[in-house]
Amino acid sequence: MPDTLKRLEHTIAQRSGAAPDSSYVASLFAKGRGKIAQKVGEEATETIIAALSGDAQQVTAESADLIFHLLILLRECGVSWDDVQAELDRREGVSGLVEKAARSNIGE
Amino acid sequence: MPDTLKRLEHTIAQRSGAAPDSSYVASLFAKGRGKIAQKVGEEATETIIAALSGDAQQVTAESADLIFHLLILLRECGVSWDDVQAELDRREGVSGLVEKAARSNIGE
Amino acid sequence: MPDTLKRLEHTIAQRSGAAPDSSYVASLFAKGRGKIAQKVGEEATETIIAALSGDAQQVTAESADLIFHLLILLRECGVSWDDVQAELDRREGVSGLVEKAARSNIGE
Amino acid sequence: MPDTLKRLEHTIAQRSGAAPDSSYVASLFAKGRGKIAQKVGEEATETIIAALSGDAQQVTAESADLIFHLLILLRECGVSWDDVQAELDRREGVSGLVEKAARSNIGE
Repeated sequence: MPDTLKRLEHTIAQRSGAAPDSSYVASLFAKGRGKIAQKVGEEATETIIAALSGDAQQVTAESADLIFHLLILLRECGVSWDDVQAELDRREGVSGLVEKAARSNIGE
Repeated sequence: MPDTLKRLEHTIAQRSGAAPDSSYVASLFAKGRGKIAQKVGEEATETIIAALSGDAQQVTAESADLIFHLLILLRECGVSWDDVQAELDRREGVSGLVEKAARSNIGE
Repeated sequence: MPDTLKRLEHTIAQRSGAAPDSSYVASLFAKGRGKIAQKVGEEATETIIAALSGDAQQVTAESADLIFHLLILLRECGVSWDDVQAELDRREGVSGLVEKAARSNIGE
Repeated sequence: MPDTLKRLEHTIAQRSGAAPDSSYVASLFAKGRGKIAQKVGEEATETIIAALSGDAQQVTAESADLIFHLLILLRECGVSWDDVQAELDRREGVSGLVEKAARSNIGE
């Protein structure tokens, strides 16, 4: 199965150059970075509210919205999803080493 | 290469049940859902500010933070990353059909 | 001149019990606390974006939106503007004492 | 009694030019607009979480934090609290006229 986020990133890239009225994504790019950032903020707030309301289905839906708009913002900023993954991989490597060192120190 | 987010989700799950002082992730779970949600809000704000400041490296770092804390919130809410991916896949399917229909309507 | 926020608080209180379609404020109360909180999050994000865009007029407009929706959320939570002012007064009192003490310590 | 927000605005203005280590406010101004905006975002998120947790005392405390950091951001952007109040007054005037007109239309 192809990776969902990579495919979504590809779709967003294709639509980024299209006419503003051709798709929701194209219209957001036309409105500019401030508007895209605003959407990321809105979806984060909706995710938080869904989490505190305890509705798992709503959390799923709002998280999908948040990821989708984050990918649009990344594209707008010239950052690829691979860049973000590489950063996460790098941290997990560091974190694993730190944890391993900590375990050694406490004699496990 | 195994999928970054799936591996990160696995790491978070392992740490979720550990002693609060054993890791940052464990300490967040111990503080509860409100605190985890708060972190998602903070990282979203930092991502927005990085985007508007035009620093791509900062956008990468803050997006990684946002994804990381979102995965913790998802775990806290009993939602898997697969659930969110499935929601994104479902929407892209719907969106593809809508777009195909729209293209037919305008004679392509 | 009567105080702007007190008067606005009064207007919001009057509209809180009215039919949902009688005003924007009444419609927000009808949608419930989650929706009101969402608006506070949106307006905060817009204020941040305006500040980083460096447009003072936009900052003024978005801050007014933020205050307006915060007053609606306060009403929804049974908190009065006087309560918030009292908390700010209390802190400034404490802060003033702390500062005075600090000044004494450094010999001023 | 002098107005709380006007007095707080005055205190913030006094501290804005002081040495970064002389007060919390001075340290925030030294860190710059991005950091101040970040604090506004954090406090807004905390206010939302307090509201959804149903703790009125927490809502009061977080709203005070939000207002305090908003006043710092306004100062940073060269906007006075009077500017924001004037905008709120202007809108309430417009809103009052709209409401009056609406009432006339429905025969009151």
